[in-house]
Amino acid sequence: MLAAVIENKKITAREVPQPAPGPGEVLIAVKLAGICGTDLEIASGYADFSGVIGHEFVGIVAGGSKNLAGKRVVGDINCVCGKCDMCMGGLSSHCRRRTVLGIVGRSGAFAEFLTLPERNCVEVPDSVSDEEAVFAEPLAAAIQVTRQVKLESRTNVAVLGTGRLGLLIAQVLATTGCKLTAIGRNQATLALLDRKRIRNLNVAEITNWAEFDVVVECTGSVEGLPLALRLVRPRGTVVMKTTCAEKAPVDLTDLVVNEVTLLGSRCGNMQDAVSLLAQKRIDVTSLVSRTTPLSDAPKAMALAAEKNTIKVLLKVG
Amino acid sequence: MLAAVIENKKITAREVPQPAPGPGEVLIAVKLAGICGTDLEIASGYADFSGVIGHEFVGIVAGGSKNLAGKRVVGDINCVCGKCDMCMGGLSSHCRRRTVLGIVGRSGAFAEFLTLPERNCVEVPDSVSDEEAVFAEPLAAAIQVTRQVKLESRTNVAVLGTGRLGLLIAQVLATTGCKLTAIGRNQATLALLDRKRIRNLNVAEITNWAEFDVVVECTGSVEGLPLALRLVRPRGTVVMKTTCAEKAPVDLTDLVVNEVTLLGSRCGNMQDAVSLLAQKRIDVTSLVSRTTPLSDAPKAMALAAEKNTIKVLLKVG
Repeated sequence: MLAAVIENKKITAREVPQPAPGPGEVLIAVKLAGICGTDLEIASGYADFSGVIGHEFVGIVAGGSKNLAGKRVVGDINCVCGKCDMCMGGLSSHCRRRTVLGIVGRSGAFAEFLTLPERNCVEVPDSVSDEEAVFAEPLAAAIQVTRQVKLESRTNVAVLGTGRLGLLIAQVLATTGCKLTAIGRNQATLALLDRKRIRNLNVAEITNWAEFDVVVECTGSVEGLPLALRLVRPRGTVVMKTTCAEKAPVDLTDLVVNEVTLLGSRCGNMQDAVSLLAQKRIDVTSLVSRTTPLSDAPKAMALAAEKNTIKVLLKVG
Repeated sequence: MLAAVIENKKITAREVPQPAPGPGEVLIAVKLAGICGTDLEIASGYADFSGVIGHEFVGIVAGGSKNLAGKRVVGDINCVCGKCDMCMGGLSSHCRRRTVLGIVGRSGAFAEFLTLPERNCVEVPDSVSDEEAVFAEPLAAAIQVTRQVKLESRTNVAVLGTGRLGLLIAQVLATTGCKLTAIGRNQATLALLDRKRIRNLNVAEITNWAEFDVVVECTGSVEGLPLALRLVRPRGTVVMKTTCAEKAPVDLTDLVVNEVTLLGSRCGNMQDAVSLLAQKRIDVTSLVSRTTPLSDAPKAMALAAEKNTIKVLLKVG
């Protein structure tokens, strides 16, 4: 089958063997896949991954399950053992022995076929298009923020970073009714936020330092955290989404002195994301900058890394 | 009056003008002062402070208050405005306009006299000696950990760092009945923990990586946080006490992927500390490595920086 493969920080689209579903797993024929900041980081060396990358997808179950045969699904990317202390303690997304689709020890979604445990699959209702469903995974990661921090109408929240993930998080947080400001550098994405009636601010225009109760750091850059620590008020909370291949010196003195809480935040619940898409409360399709064939994955990755690109999709099946 | 003064990263003991109490403030004749890791960091450039340093003390009120005249007191080091959003919001220790004794904009405790707002003073009962009372400020900072994290008998807690603050935190946490392990490098302080029947471990012998529910990072070193992030379990909590002049690259990928909570932790409640000292539940005097006259402050600071020194006290009045 055709797949996009990372080897030695180089991406190529080439033929690879089709994966075979293991016990309890299904084979999924990928329809559409999405390029995420993490994919770009993996291509820069993050997570030390080589093989078929990609973890955002929608596809059709093509084998391994009678119940789901022919169904259109998205999937939880964490494949867990069900037996370790994390799994037994209700924290299975942190399974000690997990593989993660296209990130840790498991072939990914930029391919004609992928495999996942059947229990990871979430069926997509007809009212949700492929172009919407492919956003379920990053949308779940956005929703996760609202599961970790209590957001009330008086909570003053900044979303720092208005890239592909930031635009999803800003829209999800807007549904909570909190006092929201999205902060970014890119005039095009700030204008998009204007059209969605989400208050926004250019980084260069920030005056309200140390005033936000909550700052969600999703810049994808090592420069994000120091800025977030300057935006958050004493005893406030910074939710950190960014994982970078690059390492940079971080001065955490302000975190200690201001007794800030820094919360790491990763994946969320896929069923919640599909439900939110079905409710049509989040506009995802306007975030699509380009859809290219899987065979053009290397070009698509380069495009996704460009400043004015939001989401690039790969058309597979 | 005689005082220990920091100027251009150099400490000298010399005559300086005696401070005059402002409105609502008292003059305190210092009896005994303690050298803290923060003082050593300030001497290395942290907080950009110049002037009389020191913030751990016990003294006698010598002016400015009828109620407290002649009383033996310790004092909250944060001097606050009472009017800003933090003060009005119940977070006065984070006052936007605060001065901090010997750290931010206020002459410190390594001096014959200091001034503090009267409301900052906490009277010391006769049952608590000067040598005990001088530990009230760092002990309050240790108690603060128990105010920020819920510690139950099944909570698996590591105190990382067995220096002057770590030894206090380990003792305070031991009173909670949690499953405690103190982790350090120094055989002498580990032996001291043995004598106090607190389970301890040399860093070189750690095998239980990623298993602690809570890690309290109080190493005073930039190497502490990366180690703490390896010790804490997914979705666990790292309480960070260290403030360093030195900056180092920190890889926070594990914090994001493991959804760890990092909590900055600073000062605590002085009344709570005095009460705990009065209950004799914490042994502080065995931590005193040396007591020297204030005039020897430069030598005392050098001694405090040595590997096998725990607490150095300055005898003032």
